[in-house]
Order: sequence, then C-alpha cells, then structure tokens
Amino acid sequence: MGQYSPREFQPLRWYDSTARFAAGADSPCAYLERCLEAIAAREPVVRAWAALNESGARAAADASTARWREGRPLSPLDGMPIGIKDLLETRDMPTEMGCAGTRGNFPKRDNAAVWALRQAGAVVLGKTVTTELGGSHPGPTTNPFDPARTPGGSSSGSAAAVAARMVPAAIGTQVGGSIIRPAAYCGNVALKPTQGGINRGERQATSQSTHGPHAGCIEDMWQVAIEIAARCGGDRGSPGLTGPMTLPAAIRPERLIVMETEGWAGLDAASRAAFETLLEQLRSAGITLLRRADHPLIEAFEGGIAEGRAISGAITGWENRWTQRNLLDQDPEALSPRARAILARAEAMSPADYEAALARREEAQARFARIAPLADAVIALACPGPAPLWSGDRPGEPLAPRPTGDFVFNAPSSMLFAPAVTMPLLAVGGMPVGVQLMGQMHQDARITGFARWMLGAIDPVLA
Amino acid sequence: MGQYSPREFQPLRWYDSTARFAAGADSPCAYLERCLEAIAAREPVVRAWAALNESGARAAADASTARWREGRPLSPLDGMPIGIKDLLETRDMPTEMGCAGTRGNFPKRDNAAVWALRQAGAVVLGKTVTTELGGSHPGPTTNPFDPARTPGGSSSGSAAAVAARMVPAAIGTQVGGSIIRPAAYCGNVALKPTQGGINRGERQATSQSTHGPHAGCIEDMWQVAIEIAARCGGDRGSPGLTGPMTLPAAIRPERLIVMETEGWAGLDAASRAAFETLLEQLRSAGITLLRRADHPLIEAFEGGIAEGRAISGAITGWENRWTQRNLLDQDPEALSPRARAILARAEAMSPADYEAALARREEAQARFARIAPLADAVIALACPGPAPLWSGDRPGEPLAPRPTGDFVFNAPSSMLFAPAVTMPLLAVGGMPVGVQLMGQMHQDARITGFARWMLGAIDPVLA
Repeated sequence: MGQYSPREFQPLRWYDSTARFAAGADSPCAYLERCLEAIAAREPVVRAWAALNESGARAAADASTARWREGRPLSPLDGMPIGIKDLLETRDMPTEMGCAGTRGNFPKRDNAAVWALRQAGAVVLGKTVTTELGGSHPGPTTNPFDPARTPGGSSSGSAAAVAARMVPAAIGTQVGGSIIRPAAYCGNVALKPTQGGINRGERQATSQSTHGPHAGCIEDMWQVAIEIAARCGGDRGSPGLTGPMTLPAAIRPERLIVMETEGWAGLDAASRAAFETLLEQLRSAGITLLRRADHPLIEAFEGGIAEGRAISGAITGWENRWTQRNLLDQDPEALSPRARAILARAEAMSPADYEAALARREEAQARFARIAPLADAVIALACPGPAPLWSGDRPGEPLAPRPTGDFVFNAPSSMLFAPAVTMPLLAVGGMPVGVQLMGQMHQDARITGFARWMLGAIDPVLA
Repeated sequence: MGQYSPREFQPLRWYDSTARFAAGADSPCAYLERCLEAIAAREPVVRAWAALNESGARAAADASTARWREGRPLSPLDGMPIGIKDLLETRDMPTEMGCAGTRGNFPKRDNAAVWALRQAGAVVLGKTVTTELGGSHPGPTTNPFDPARTPGGSSSGSAAAVAARMVPAAIGTQVGGSIIRPAAYCGNVALKPTQGGINRGERQATSQSTHGPHAGCIEDMWQVAIEIAARCGGDRGSPGLTGPMTLPAAIRPERLIVMETEGWAGLDAASRAAFETLLEQLRSAGITLLRRADHPLIEAFEGGIAEGRAISGAITGWENRWTQRNLLDQDPEALSPRARAILARAEAMSPADYEAALARREEAQARFARIAPLADAVIALACPGPAPLWSGDRPGEPLAPRPTGDFVFNAPSSMLFAPAVTMPLLAVGGMPVGVQLMGQMHQDARITGFARWMLGAIDPVLA
C-alpha cells in the first residue's frame, strides 16, 4: 500500500513563496528549477507529462523574476509553474489528447484559460497526461503514492504532477468525474467550478464539462481559478466565476447534507468508517448533519442522482459521438477498443434518447435546487475509497470498465452543474481519499470558504 | 439598380430533380456539372467561393449517381451540391475564415453539420466566402443582382452562390444577422434555427450563434436542416431541431405580430410601402395583424429589443475577444483595422458589463415569451431595404461601420434565440428584400409551415 498521510504530506505551495521574490531571497527562476528537479527525479515512474517546454518555461520565469524584483508582478500567480491538461490547446506545445487519432495535433493557439494564465504571468511548464480524449482509456501515469495504482482520470497527469510536488498547480477538466476523482486519489485540493464558470474556449462542445484547478493548497487553487476568470470569464452565456481576488474567508457551515449516491452501498468498510469519523468531528463542532432519511426532499435528491453515471454517460456519449466518428472515418485505429465500445453505445442512441437523458438531468437539477434551503452545502466522499490497482489491459481478457476508478461520487456535481471542492482529509491504507463539498450553482466562493474552514478546523482521519 | 424580380427569378431546386435520377434521365453528376458551369460563368464577378473541391465533388457525385440508379440513396439530399461557409471546418479544404490570421488553417476534420451532410450523401462542393471571422469586415463577394452592392454578410458567399444559381443550397451561420440578412439581400429562402437547433460542432464558443441553410426554395431549406439535425442533433444540451422529415405542411396563420425594431424609423419609403402592401394582402386573406400600438405587451417587447444591436454586439464582442487577442498576439496584422476597433471595444468591457448585457438579453427573451399567446408568429422585414452599395474601403477615409448592411432587423431573432425564416417576397428597385417570420423557441417547423403558406398564397410585391 501507499505511504501517504494527510498530516505529513507537504505539497508545493506558491502563495506564500512570493513574498521572498521581491527581496531576491527566492525567485520564480529558482522555484522553476526546483520543479524541474522534482520532475527529473520522479517522472520516470509517475509519468505525469505528455510534453514539457523547459526552455519556454525558463524564459517565462526569467521575465517573471525581473517583474517581481521591479515590484510589478502581473498578478499573485506571476511566475507560478503550472501544468495544463493535454486536452487544452497551447500555442507552444502539441495537444495530442492522449489519443492515437490526434497524434501530432498542434494548433498554434492557446485555450482561453491558458491565455489567461499567461496574461497573469504564470509559467506554462508542460502538458499533463489525459486519458484518451478525456474518456475511460488510461494514459501511462501512475499514482505518486503507489505506482501500482491509478492516479484517477481523466486529469491523471494534473493530479499526479501536483501530488509528486512537480508543480504547485495544474489545470484539469471534468465531464463526469475527471477533476475531483483524480484529485481525491492524489491528495490534491481541487475545484470543479459551476458549469460555465471558467471559459472553456475551444472546448465548449459538451454540456457538462468544466475546467478547474488542481493544487497543493486551497490558496493556490482559488487564486488560479479567479485569475483565469477575471481575464477570460466564463463560457459563452455565463458571467463566469466571481468572488474575492484572494482566497475567501473561512466560513463554518451550520448545516450540511450528507450525500450518499449509488456508490454508498459498494463502499469499502475502511473508507466508510473514516468518513463517518470525519462526520463525527463535524457534529462535535456543532454542525448539523442531515441525511437521506432525515427529509423527503433529500431522499428525492438522492433518487434524482441515483443513476447519475448512466445519465452523464448517455449525454456525454451523444455529444462526443460525431467528433469521435470523424476521427474513425479517417483512421480505424484512431480510437482504442475501449473508446470504440463507448462510441458504439452512443451511436445506438436516438435523438429522443438524448432528450430523455437531458430531461432526467433537468429533473435531478430541480431536485437539487429544492434542497438548497435545508443546508449550507452538501458533503460527500470525493471518490469510492482509495485509488484502485491498475496494471494495464491484459491481451485476450475483457476490458476493465473503469481503469481510472469509478466516478460514482462525481457524476452528481457534473450533472447538477454544481461547484465542488475536494479536500485531502482522509487516508485509507496509506492512500489519499478526498472529501468534497458541493454547493448550489455559482456558490464556488462560498464552498471554498467552507472548505477553508474545514481544512483548518478538522483533523485528517487515517484508517 | 438590379434586375431582380421575385416573380421571374428561378432559383436552382433540388427536391424535384431527384425523381429523374432513378430513371437515369438526370443524375447528380449532370446536376453538378451544371453547377460548375454556372460557377465558371459567374464566379469572376460574384466571387462567392473561398475554395472549391471539384475533383472531390465529382467523385462524390459519381458515388451518389450510382446509389440513385441502384435505388438506395442515403437521403433525399443524396448528391446535392452544397456550399459550406468558410467558418466551418472541412476535412478536404482549408478553413481560412476570411481572416489574415487564420490563413492556411487546415484541420483535417469536418464540422458536425458538414459530417452530417456527407452522411446524407450531399456533395460538399466548396467553401463560401465569409466576412472576416464572421464579423463586419467584408470579403470580395458581390451581390449577384448588382455587382456594385453587397451580398450582405457574414454568410456572403453562401447567399450569393444560391442567388447566382451555382448551388441549390449552402450553409451559413448567424451571430447577429449573418444568415437572414444576406439571404434577404440575395433573394434566398433561409432558416436561422432556434439557438442550439443545429449542432455547431467546434463552433460553440458564442452564445447566440446558429448554423442554418440558405436555399433557392423552402423545400430544400427544410430538407437540409432536418437531415443535419437527424444525424448530429443540436448543440450540447439541446435536443436539436425536430419536425417532419420532409417540408412541413402549409399552415395559414390566424394572427401575426408586426415587429418594427429600431430600424423602422430609418427605413426607406419604398421598402416600407412594399412591406405595408404585403401586409395588406395578409389582412385581405383574413389574418389579424397586431402592432406595437395594439397591445402593451407588444410595446414592451419592442422596448426589449430596441437596443438589440448594442446588446448583441457587446455579448458577442466579449465572447470573441480572447480568440481574437490570441491571433493578434501572434501577428499584429492578423486582424483588419475594422476588427481591431471592435476588439478594442470588447476589451474595454468588464465582466460586469458582460453580465449586464446578458441580463438585458434575458429580459428581452422574457418579454418575447410573454407575447406568445397573442399571435401565431412575428412578421417583419428581414433587412432594412435593398442591399447597400459597397465599393470597398477608401484609404484615408474613416471605416464605414456596416459595409455588409445593417443587422437591425436580425438582432432580435439572434438575441431571442428564436427561429426565423426569410422569404423572397419583395423587390425594391430591382433588388431583393426579404420578409421574415419569427417564432418562439423550437417552433422552427411551425414557422416553416407558415412560410410555406405565405410563399404559396401571397403575391410578391415589386416597388
């Protein structure tokens, strides 16, 4: 098993490093070199990166170093080395999306969020490994706390690079569970924003996907999100993430709803016990916890999300099918057998099937809105126990259905368009297990305030 | 002035050509050759095409010809030569978007609608000229009925190619007025679908843009739209356009609301008189017409759209600004001075300005929904009189603000997410002037039925 303890693990932090930059006691250049050393040491096993741009990063860090010394940084992120999930376009590196069919793809432009990060002075160090097109088929990345285990997906490299102390932050994306689950398996703090909260730029063709930050600490998580939103706003039609320009103040919640999801029944005993121990701490702190048996609206809410994986999968499959067929039309080997099987299911859908799935999603959203008056936020596990073992597909054997883990605890925030923050508050068998807070739409800053309070007030639980 | 008469002009039609294909009396190959002859004859002046793929089209037409002879066409569109606005990606031709900054852009994939058209057997003949990135700066296309006049924009080439009998149909896109206005200036029938009704594929980064067909006749207009939607549905989150798989039956409306817009006051007398004469025919046919003075909700609706151009411009400017800045970052000459001026205004906006514009749009949408019970549909001019003269920018003089015409009659359907159909029912000074019907969201098939009735029952008006 792993060697992770949330009490001992020291992630990279950026926000409290910058004070030394102006004085010359440290610099973005020196910070970057430390990141590169960590990459050199751990990348052979972790394999978090699809591409690195060391020379470009060094040039950007040089410029940033000069700005800090001259007292005119572009933002608190100026000089921060950051990883970008290899689904987002970058003008200086290929965007291969973990897919044979898009190998060599190299548009010479930046995704909106990447553009915004550069405007804020961030140092775009490299592209982090994604599962194939952000789907089920895994890349080569291993979990930094146990190389026999998955880092989660689809933001595998972003989660692992932060966990391996290679960068203080990285950008991930989530359609089903692709930010929160890998972050939870890797001991990150991460934000899956409200749907539309961060401008997805060229990646706006799916209805429940978001871009969001993975980070070592909540200060950096928030800063990355708000600096992006301040520069390129939200998706078309959305004003975008709003909130204070530095981490929101800690807020102690009064009441929380405990969300079980359909994953509750199959949860391992140690993870369940660890989570219940954590809840006990919240009760001791005077917080009222409400569960499905406590209120018919909560039971109705759980009913609405009970088939969240199937609903999310149907919607996303339908929305992706023409681009995937487009790739296969050009090359029958463009997609993995795993992806081809998912595409076949999507292509068997009719427009009416899609509309029915949208209707079920809207119903779940309506049920979620109805529980808003009952509590401040929802709390849940962010993943179904520790990251599973994964050693690759075996020739001749059936394909494992979810090699990067199960998104059963993540489908709800995705389909509800709800903001979620995962916190590294549990360890089970020496591996991280995240706990998430989920809010109503546009409550990103508010749940970040609750998360800040929890990270300060609650002792991590080891099981 | 021009030589156009809606009573005499004979556009290309596809729907009633196919009966002869099975018998061998005609064929998609022969049809294509007639299109290529029209292009050879008229393209030197009209300049509708950014790219042509004659060999690819001939190969596709050959395959289609064989399918018709074997009695197994892929759809009623099998073999139809069609133009694709050069904003949409095509795997066999560049997608240069009328912009210096995207010259040579050649992604090897098809936009969702293009992919769907190929699945239906359509022959993708070429890319039609767009204004620069679909904005204000014009391309080289001239109006087929008077080369001194604009064809309208931004779907300049699509509208002109249909008007010049080069193709029976072409795909346009509309953000402000870019399908309906050029179609109206060029005597096309065209559909601007409900927002989200036709899958925009990679082009989903603006909140009020749509893809839609320009055609010579309403039968082909509907067939193109519904065959696309049946294969790739709508934008993410939308079930997409629905309706019968052939042109909806004609429906005589009982009541229509006459929309004036802020363009009414500045309209030339001849166009206004021609429109009023048309309305008189509707009254004679027993249709009740309601105008702004007749009902406070109609007056409120007109108030909501009164600054439609400004609201649409602000929203779209904000949504496009990062991609445009992205181009300029790489090349200061990537955009025209006209586009750079618009970008400068967008970059002066704050997130709060964008949110305020979104709020005004939502208010206008709410006011539009409230007039739904009053009438079957809205009727209005589709353009402010005939296409204006345009001979290019003059060095040293200020840039003309709207060289492809004014979208004052089109901003409403764009900002209201409403379906609109333009019909070639007026001629003013020998130039086409369109009349549009606008419905509530998702009433695309219904307004197409009304439009079919009008095209059959109403005499075109010449002024």
